[in-house]
Amino acid sequence: MSPRFARLRSDMTMDEAIAYLRRQAQDVETIYYAYALDDQQHLLGVVSFRDLFKADRTKRVSDVMRADFVSAREDMDQETVARLVATHHLLAIPVTDGENRLKGIVTVDDIVDVVLEEDSEDIQKLGGMEALDAPYLQISFWQMVKKRAGWLAILFVGEMLTATAMGYFEQEIAKAVVLALFVPLIISSGGNSGSQATTLVIRAMAMGEVRLRDWWRIVRREFSTGFVLGTVLAVIGTMRILLWQALWKRYGEHYVVVAVTVACSLIGVVLFGTIAGSMLPFVLRRCGLDPASASAPFVATLVDVTGLVIYFTVASVVMRGILL
Amino acid sequence: MSPRFARLRSDMTMDEAIAYLRRQAQDVETIYYAYALDDQQHLLGVVSFRDLFKADRTKRVSDVMRADFVSAREDMDQETVARLVATHHLLAIPVTDGENRLKGIVTVDDIVDVVLEEDSEDIQKLGGMEALDAPYLQISFWQMVKKRAGWLAILFVGEMLTATAMGYFEQEIAKAVVLALFVPLIISSGGNSGSQATTLVIRAMAMGEVRLRDWWRIVRREFSTGFVLGTVLAVIGTMRILLWQALWKRYGEHYVVVAVTVACSLIGVVLFGTIAGSMLPFVLRRCGLDPASASAPFVATLVDVTGLVIYFTVASVVMRGILL
Repeated sequence: MSPRFARLRSDMTMDEAIAYLRRQAQDVETIYYAYALDDQQHLLGVVSFRDLFKADRTKRVSDVMRADFVSAREDMDQETVARLVATHHLLAIPVTDGENRLKGIVTVDDIVDVVLEEDSEDIQKLGGMEALDAPYLQISFWQMVKKRAGWLAILFVGEMLTATAMGYFEQEIAKAVVLALFVPLIISSGGNSGSQATTLVIRAMAMGEVRLRDWWRIVRREFSTGFVLGTVLAVIGTMRILLWQALWKRYGEHYVVVAVTVACSLIGVVLFGTIAGSMLPFVLRRCGLDPASASAPFVATLVDVTGLVIYFTVASVVMRGILL
Repeated sequence: MSPRFARLRSDMTMDEAIAYLRRQAQDVETIYYAYALDDQQHLLGVVSFRDLFKADRTKRVSDVMRADFVSAREDMDQETVARLVATHHLLAIPVTDGENRLKGIVTVDDIVDVVLEEDSEDIQKLGGMEALDAPYLQISFWQMVKKRAGWLAILFVGEMLTATAMGYFEQEIAKAVVLALFVPLIISSGGNSGSQATTLVIRAMAMGEVRLRDWWRIVRREFSTGFVLGTVLAVIGTMRILLWQALWKRYGEHYVVVAVTVACSLIGVVLFGTIAGSMLPFVLRRCGLDPASASAPFVATLVDVTGLVIYFTVASVVMRGILL
């Protein structure tokens, strides 16, 4: 924010205003908007230089200024201010305190920098790491390792639960090794669908399209989406198993049971991944954390463990008395 | 791009120029930059209204205009133009043809929209889906499913190779079920480290920090980074196995062999994930595709299959004659 803004009084004539601006031109951040203030620095209106310039010279500042201007509050975060400027196509936005006193302006060229920088942070967090805060080729090797190793280690420790979950089903795997074959396929489907959902919600939040109170609308929408997506994958998965069986008798006599297990698990895992992925940014924001930390790898880790439990539970129901 | 720009002749005086601009003010996109053209529309210089305004009135346009202006070419993509405007803190940029004839201007408020929109596209692609091109809550249900199902199905088909890869090692799994327990942990570590690398490179490319010809620098850097990150995870993984063994005798008499297999595989998989993840955007750009399509889920799928092969190959070497 810059305190070097151009100021006018609302009772000045056009000629007075232009002459007054000319005197300020050297010292202000932009001459393209001027701000009409009263004696206590309260902001009364905004006038673009273009309006001054076009107006009949007999008019006064109060005749041409906009009293319904868009302004930002001192305590707004910079992403919100950037969005205001973008939405209203402004070249600069006035920043006021709680009593509408003008404290400074933010110009659009600063906004472009802010937008690019904040988006870089979001993108890097979505990739499962801390924001670099520096260009890739300029950051030092150990700085880079530090920014990446932290999250990678946290995700790794979380993912260790998959070894624990698999351990619980060790007997089942020993009896039906065929179960192990589909583990990566099933858990990755949950991770991928969760990654899509979380990315969509995070971006919609950053763009101000979705707010905390919309969570129930999102749950309902993602439930249907997840169900349809899960069904699509279940159909493809079933076709794959039936085809391999027809061609190479790959899955033995109980291939139908295998296919049913895989299909039901896929629907369950994709549904869970989609809902968990879409809700995670809400939970993080509710806890006062940055929703962009709900990265694709974070969601994948969360969904991997649950995916295994869903898969082996489905298997133990479907295969009971047949393969298990 | 707008063709409604303010034009001046370079031999006009300040007063002539301001009067001439006043006549154009109604019809132009911005009055804050004016463009000095010759008779054939060649762009000679750019003058900001502020410079006109501050200058001594006896000066001519050619005295105050900048001849070393920043301009964009007609055939530039909008991300490049946005970057030029951001880097040089411009309010508008002139767009010229191959012979330096002024075709129009792009103003900074359009740039903010472009930046936000392009970043949304990149973020959605990074999440493993097509760009929505519409706000989340406004797009229709089936449009949304279509944008997501395509990539999800492609990733699913790619991920099916994991079932094939696992199938090759079915005998090994049957002999040493303990191997299966670490499959999700190991392949997800490759996916996560690959996702970090690909995200970093894609963003660095979008910001113009990294170019195609930098690929070899990136490979060298990511090789060292991947090795360090893999070692960190290998240490954590080994500690986990030794601890569980000490507490619950979880992995039987050959727990050292299991720990060595897991640790070596982790280094290999993370190293491969990091290099593959960082190179994928280069390969895509080299093929004329959008590097942002190298999403976290895409990289994870690529790395999952290779990760399984690395893991079971390491296992068959380390465990030969002991567990296999």
